[in-house]
Amino acid sequence: MPRSTRPGGRTARTKAVVFEAAAALVAEQGHEAIAMTDIAARAGVAATSLYRRWGDVRTLLMEVAVDRLNADSPMPNTGSLRSDLRTWARRIAAGLTAPGGSPFFRTLVATAPAPGPAATGGDMERITAFGPRLQQIAVMLDRAAARGEAAPPLMDVIDHLLAPLYMRALVGAPISAAFAHDLADRLLA
Amino acid sequence: MPRSTRPGGRTARTKAVVFEAAAALVAEQGHEAIAMTDIAARAGVAATSLYRRWGDVRTLLMEVAVDRLNADSPMPNTGSLRSDLRTWARRIAAGLTAPGGSPFFRTLVATAPAPGPAATGGDMERITAFGPRLQQIAVMLDRAAARGEAAPPLMDVIDHLLAPLYMRALVGAPISAAFAHDLADRLLA
Repeated sequence: MPRSTRPGGRTARTKAVVFEAAAALVAEQGHEAIAMTDIAARAGVAATSLYRRWGDVRTLLMEVAVDRLNADSPMPNTGSLRSDLRTWARRIAAGLTAPGGSPFFRTLVATAPAPGPAATGGDMERITAFGPRLQQIAVMLDRAAARGEAAPPLMDVIDHLLAPLYMRALVGAPISAAFAHDLADRLLA
Repeated sequence: MPRSTRPGGRTARTKAVVFEAAAALVAEQGHEAIAMTDIAARAGVAATSLYRRWGDVRTLLMEVAVDRLNADSPMPNTGSLRSDLRTWARRIAAGLTAPGGSPFFRTLVATAPAPGPAATGGDMERITAFGPRLQQIAVMLDRAAARGEAAPPLMDVIDHLLAPLYMRALVGAPISAAFAHDLADRLLA
């Protein structure tokens, strides 16, 4: 069987081409104006296959952003969970307050589901889009548990470390490194 | 001095007219396409005075949304802080998961500051826009303190009750009434 028809290989290559096309379009024109058909045309694939795989353009753009976040900003691995969480929280705070802003924050906000955002039809695609980041956080927590450290549940990290940082960015409240450290310490208290 | 030139009265009337014009435009065409000049034209006031008072259209739209939120959804006053917090969190969860979605969530996301979102130039306008809601929450906490109940700091309520609910809506994670109750209980633990 020729390599080009092996499902796994072809799927991975298509994904890489689609992600690259989507990222280029976002860089050129922002999130708002991009349609699934634009990404399909740029990637040279059928729009129907993009709809089949990602459902809608918001989910695809969110997956691209998470993929990039994981590549550019891997979870810290300092040898202690407290230090990992503090480092990570401080890095998010720095990104959210940087002059250029955080590309991931912009995507998160630009692709937020419009009607009945959670626990309805579209939510599982969203959690899938964010899923690869959740997996990286879970690996960090597993490393801590393997070292014998007490690790909080995965969703507590989302709800009480990530959420306050992003919420403050949404309402424009101050975000300092000290605040980031406090969130990490509070999670382990 | 004729009443129409009294600063307080005229300011309040102008604000009411401007808020009504902005709300009508949002209802008709959503947030994205609205410019300060559209609101000025609809309200019959000079755009320069809107810029002087609100800085930019995002701040104005956020103030309108907070004003409406305070009117439509006053903070609970049940006689106990635990019950107030649980009722409020459950109500937010219900709004975020309703089929039509939460108008306030849509505004929060649509008016999120784009570059360097927090702790830079624009942040104080944002905190001012959200300020009237913070004041209502502070009143609820003050009532509890006056009853002799232990009340958490105001920003803890934002960071650990509001933020997890909105973050879950942003990433499409499940939001249940039980989760809302847990957030309230955790805040008082």
